[in-house]
Amino acid sequence: MGAVKTKRMPRAVREQQMLDAAVRIFGQRGYMAASMDEIAELAGVSKPLVYLYLNSKEDLFTACIRREATALTAAVRAGVRQELPADRQLWEGLRAFFAHTAEHPDGWSVLHLQARTHGETFAAEVAAMRAELVTFVTRLVVVAAREAHRDPGLPEREVAGLAEALVGAAESLAAWANATPGVTARQAAATLMNFAWSGLGTLMSGRVWAPPGEET
Amino acid sequence: MGAVKTKRMPRAVREQQMLDAAVRIFGQRGYMAASMDEIAELAGVSKPLVYLYLNSKEDLFTACIRREATALTAAVRAGVRQELPADRQLWEGLRAFFAHTAEHPDGWSVLHLQARTHGETFAAEVAAMRAELVTFVTRLVVVAAREAHRDPGLPEREVAGLAEALVGAAESLAAWANATPGVTARQAAATLMNFAWSGLGTLMSGRVWAPPGEET
Repeated sequence: MGAVKTKRMPRAVREQQMLDAAVRIFGQRGYMAASMDEIAELAGVSKPLVYLYLNSKEDLFTACIRREATALTAAVRAGVRQELPADRQLWEGLRAFFAHTAEHPDGWSVLHLQARTHGETFAAEVAAMRAELVTFVTRLVVVAAREAHRDPGLPEREVAGLAEALVGAAESLAAWANATPGVTARQAAATLMNFAWSGLGTLMSGRVWAPPGEET
Repeated sequence: MGAVKTKRMPRAVREQQMLDAAVRIFGQRGYMAASMDEIAELAGVSKPLVYLYLNSKEDLFTACIRREATALTAAVRAGVRQELPADRQLWEGLRAFFAHTAEHPDGWSVLHLQARTHGETFAAEVAAMRAELVTFVTRLVVVAAREAHRDPGLPEREVAGLAEALVGAAESLAAWANATPGVTARQAAATLMNFAWSGLGTLMSGRVWAPPGEET
């Protein structure tokens, strides 16, 4: 790539190219094994320029986590039409989640595996994204309860627990789907929807699984 | 503690005391912040003795992960009576899982957070334990399908996906329960059982959540 072309490209565009390259290398090699040389080469820039723009490997990785986390939560929000019934909203949210993680496997690897595996600072970045997803799902469960036109007797704590369970299930399933050849995003979304909605739907209708009587 | 008493204690017993102390410090302080000084002090031994027995901070942490992973999977297996119907087996397995993680919050923090946050070697240790739990849950789903006395039309891949989803949900919920005052192990188990069993039960009866017709 010639020097003239390099000079003409705005900083913001070049920075995104560096982040594209970095997400790919971090996602595929892992944080420890990823080299700044390789990232610079894939981005088509010099290594000093990467350091000039992104400062350090740690800062570059943090920038990757933030960008991928923002993109994932934005994709889920954009995929959901809030005027629809709760089950459709959940279905659309799950489809958007699994479509995004399938289309960005390196980004998902950065968020789900790499960021949680290499220190508390990075893990905290992912925890913030996760909290946003949990809040989003919590709202959906509350909407579902309201639509059921009854007080479903679901205490706030139970709703919070259900949202945590659903997000944990989605994370786990996305990692599995990306690692299992032939599993589509739609199939993964349908598996979780069947699992979650049948459960939630039954709960909303007031039927609960009853623990054995002898225990208290 | 006197030198005579120290000499009399068998190595295996002393090693367990060191691991007890290490799990507590690693779980509460985090892997990076944990100091070998503090671990030795809590175990009531000298720091050189910890190094003599466990070699290094990395090896000590690996030993902690292995011990806690073995204890957790053993607790789940021991909690389940295989002669019972599938829903009872799942309930007992969930109760054993949440009881163990609630009773050993430092061990669970080591497995769920610390081991995944500090490098691929440690993460691989936890992945092995997780694979064992997924296998265990997969068998339960297969048993449930058999008990439904019908071919439930659940392909092998769907069963694998359900097991991944359930384990991910349980992990997420255990972390939340331990961090939320007043949530008991039984409540966490009941929340997930309601969520999972209603969903699985409905699936086994052949009813699935139908995606909107216009999509294929």
